Amino acid sequence: MSNILKGIGASDGVAIAPVYSLEEPDLSFDSKQIEPGGEDAEVERFKAAFNQSKVEITRIRNHAEESVGPEHAAIFDAHLLVLDDPEFLGPIEAHIRNDQKSAPQALLETRDQFVAVFENMENEYMKERAADIKDVSKRVLAHMLGKELPDPSKIDTPVVIVAEDLTPSDTAQLDKNFVKGFVTNVGGRTSHSAIMSRSLEIPAVVGTKDITAIAKVGDDIIVDGSAGEVIVNPTEDEVLVYKDKEARVQEEKAELQKLVDEPSESMDGITVELAANIGTPDDLEGVKSNGAEGIGLYRTEFLYMGRNELPTEDEQYEAYKKVLKDMEGKPVVVRTLDVGGDKELPYLDLPKEMNPFLGHRAVRMTLDNPELFRTQLRALLRASQHGNLKIMFPMIATIDEFNRAKALLIEEKDKLVDEGEKIKEDIEVGIMVEIPSAAVIADQFAKVVDFFSIGTNDLIQYTMAADRMNESVSYLYQPHHPALLRLIKMVIDAAHKEGKWAGMCGEMAGDEQAVPLLLGLGLDEFSMSASSVLKARKQISQLKKTDMERLAAAAIECKDSEEVLALVEEYTDRI
Amino acid sequence: MSNILKGIGASDGVAIAPVYSLEEPDLSFDSKQIEPGGEDAEVERFKAAFNQSKVEITRIRNHAEESVGPEHAAIFDAHLLVLDDPEFLGPIEAHIRNDQKSAPQALLETRDQFVAVFENMENEYMKERAADIKDVSKRVLAHMLGKELPDPSKIDTPVVIVAEDLTPSDTAQLDKNFVKGFVTNVGGRTSHSAIMSRSLEIPAVVGTKDITAIAKVGDDIIVDGSAGEVIVNPTEDEVLVYKDKEARVQEEKAELQKLVDEPSESMDGITVELAANIGTPDDLEGVKSNGAEGIGLYRTEFLYMGRNELPTEDEQYEAYKKVLKDMEGKPVVVRTLDVGGDKELPYLDLPKEMNPFLGHRAVRMTLDNPELFRTQLRALLRASQHGNLKIMFPMIATIDEFNRAKALLIEEKDKLVDEGEKIKEDIEVGIMVEIPSAAVIADQFAKVVDFFSIGTNDLIQYTMAADRMNESVSYLYQPHHPALLRLIKMVIDAAHKEGKWAGMCGEMAGDEQAVPLLLGLGLDEFSMSASSVLKARKQISQLKKTDMERLAAAAIECKDSEEVLALVEEYTDRI
Repeated sequence: MSNILKGIGASDGVAIAPVYSLEEPDLSFDSKQIEPGGEDAEVERFKAAFNQSKVEITRIRNHAEESVGPEHAAIFDAHLLVLDDPEFLGPIEAHIRNDQKSAPQALLETRDQFVAVFENMENEYMKERAADIKDVSKRVLAHMLGKELPDPSKIDTPVVIVAEDLTPSDTAQLDKNFVKGFVTNVGGRTSHSAIMSRSLEIPAVVGTKDITAIAKVGDDIIVDGSAGEVIVNPTEDEVLVYKDKEARVQEEKAELQKLVDEPSESMDGITVELAANIGTPDDLEGVKSNGAEGIGLYRTEFLYMGRNELPTEDEQYEAYKKVLKDMEGKPVVVRTLDVGGDKELPYLDLPKEMNPFLGHRAVRMTLDNPELFRTQLRALLRASQHGNLKIMFPMIATIDEFNRAKALLIEEKDKLVDEGEKIKEDIEVGIMVEIPSAAVIADQFAKVVDFFSIGTNDLIQYTMAADRMNESVSYLYQPHHPALLRLIKMVIDAAHKEGKWAGMCGEMAGDEQAVPLLLGLGLDEFSMSASSVLKARKQISQLKKTDMERLAAAAIECKDSEEVLALVEEYTDRI
Repeated sequence: MSNILKGIGASDGVAIAPVYSLEEPDLSFDSKQIEPGGEDAEVERFKAAFNQSKVEITRIRNHAEESVGPEHAAIFDAHLLVLDDPEFLGPIEAHIRNDQKSAPQALLETRDQFVAVFENMENEYMKERAADIKDVSKRVLAHMLGKELPDPSKIDTPVVIVAEDLTPSDTAQLDKNFVKGFVTNVGGRTSHSAIMSRSLEIPAVVGTKDITAIAKVGDDIIVDGSAGEVIVNPTEDEVLVYKDKEARVQEEKAELQKLVDEPSESMDGITVELAANIGTPDDLEGVKSNGAEGIGLYRTEFLYMGRNELPTEDEQYEAYKKVLKDMEGKPVVVRTLDVGGDKELPYLDLPKEMNPFLGHRAVRMTLDNPELFRTQLRALLRASQHGNLKIMFPMIATIDEFNRAKALLIEEKDKLVDEGEKIKEDIEVGIMVEIPSAAVIADQFAKVVDFFSIGTNDLIQYTMAADRMNESVSYLYQPHHPALLRLIKMVIDAAHKEGKWAGMCGEMAGDEQAVPLLLGLGLDEFSMSASSVLKARKQISQLKKTDMERLAAAAIECKDSEEVLALVEEYTDRI
């Protein structure tokens, strides 16, 4: 008889395959103390395990770079940094030498101290550092105990992975040609494994509590990521039902795939631009396979992350050049460095802030660190000749900030021209509109910028004064609230009045309930995750812009999100 | 020869008086360890010092309550709580018994642990707890060592206090009849002592670095709080100059005092309401002596602070009743509990948040704790019969939040009426406008609320996405920014269209450069610190509203704060 489990759907889609159990070896040990005199030998044991781990991680890293791409391999660079960090190694050796702890015990005590510090930092980035330290410590411990960790990179037949949880180093090794889905005991929609399943587009159900107790090697398993359901050893009927469901999902995908080279045009013939947001050049494949007409947001933070020091001008130049060349003249909007807030760069040693989302982040930080800023601007300017570059500054609140940032850009451009460098002449320079003040005086900004890109994630959080990462105020994260729609309208109207264009690069741009409103408000460019582009193209092809204009006009007079959403339903059902 | 020192002007005004040195006794000690066997005696020593401190603090507390008011005495209640806290006492005794530390050493080590924890909390309220623990530990240490701390409550002749710094327990004992000013080595404009000097309206200069080395008992001293200057042993000429300056300050004060019973009327005969912000009933004296026409903001947080548990309905009722009765029918706008953000209540155990200013604060928290909220609403309703009560909810972002809060109010009103309680019939219920969304859809809010009160401190910080307590983004705290003026205009226009009134209770309402703009925008009620009321009344009497309307219309078309401020100067100079 089949066994049905409910969990949290982490990533849509259906998969049917045999179970692959990512079961961990028993890593418990008894010897917590050593005899006096045994310190040297124990320190050797600890160092040997570190070295074995380094060799192993380097191997995994290189394999991951080849099989799943350099973006995923970066996690192992972070692990190698931990293994070389004297602040981590020092206390372990001290525990062994001073307190006669065994190497495994010294490792775990030091690990726990570090994890406690990082987890208490109440910052997503730092919490990930805690996960890294746990992850890498487990590998070192296994080497100390002579045990072997499961190796997901060895999977070479179609399977569904079943595990307590997936560590960052596990997910970095998953090859989606073979791993058809996964199911875990723990986790929620925003846990590491859930986020990775969506990024890999693998169906996944997390938080099932006891899948590892129920599903064993030799069992077949169905994962329905959309419904958050798992069936272990399904009946033939169940297999038929889900094969059918899987087929329909594939069919829809194929249907959408036909739109990949089509224009993004409304039913009444109005064309908009559907672009993609990317984090690294590795994301370009998805951009093309999903038919995005440009890059509406290239987040440059990743260039600066998972390293020990700032990237050089040349390193940046190469990355920007690759994206610009690959996009073959299609627009590429690059956002200058946006760190601070929830994104930290350990080597910059930015001061801890009481309210980082209201703090010294993004352009505020780069304006105060002009050398860092100039390096990025130079790299961008030099890369400009390879494509259709547009530059935008994040977190602009006042016109003065824009003027100061643009002045630096012009200074560097003049210097480069003097140096004989070829720079594209007509680079558009715009701003992210994510701070209420910028939206409210968009008419003033429109006189000096070349374009706007509305960053809804932040604009919503500031407009509602609600941290978008804080569960207890998540009810205020309302992308369809009339206050937000009015601010968006101000921005679009201001742009058009000055003959400029307005885009959007927040999650809202790909939201099915928002697209009709945004089309009606006159948005020119919609930038979203690449995987949403085709769906949005299809939706827009079924909408009449003139109808949506009436919808938008009515929506901004609503009193709350519920009224807006009811209107959206009314207007889109009617079609 | 006289000796001139520069420091940071913490509180305006001039004072000339002999030096009173608040010099501390030497609290160093040698005996850090005790002999084994001496533990019991040492624990006795520690307990005796705690008991002596309790007796002393209770005496100081009662004296402070009489001489400077119960508001200032509250600090000593916090100290008494520390002295009774088993979490503080336990480790001290453990250090003595287990590690043979001496009582002073055990105290200091425990103090340092606690202070480190609280100071790392990155939260103003918790940092004050760190100051309390340091302060009270010093007193206990003095008792352990048989030393006496200086006692500022014994000052009974006019003096200027000179000290390294002033602790909370020092400032709580200052009698402004005798303490004419103070000067410290350390501190900045927002340090505890600086804030207290303004609250006590005593001229003060802080951060002089070495006043204690230069000014000695027997010296005369001049404090010029406006210029941030101190002169030790002034020449006769200097005394004359500063006596003159002091006289002019007094003269201006006397001039303003004549306006205390005058209406607040513009040159062309338009009347507005000038109200005061208060924190406790103790502030009423200042409200009256400064001729405020009402209370535009009664912050109820203080009722909930410096305690171990929530205030009862009756305790709250008594406080509200006192304010309403004392105001004799003049409007009193009470803001319901606004904690969270930078204001914590330890006994509520609110979760720590990554961005408290964007968190679960104010009405968001009270709506989720309806019993706490209902108790406050009942107390307010019962008190309503004693005056002209208006109620407003803080941090409202959506109409739904207002509706939910108002529904609780109506439920409690109906219950009280059923219980036979007399409740005023026409209590106005409004909202604070401090979140951009509320300003942007003010037209929708105006249909359901009775009034608006614009809270500029928060509205600026959210509109600019800049933590108002974060130095590195303080340049964005721009009360005259056109984006802010436009939001204010939306609120005022929306109110008037529905026949409602709009007030302001942020610092901006009393700002000399903002008053002309606000008058021009049509603000009905200006609520500020009581000490600013007369100055604002004088300023308004010199402005023509029709001129200011033209100023405001031009200001909202400016591109930045500089342009606005230039316009203000132009329009107000012209008069």
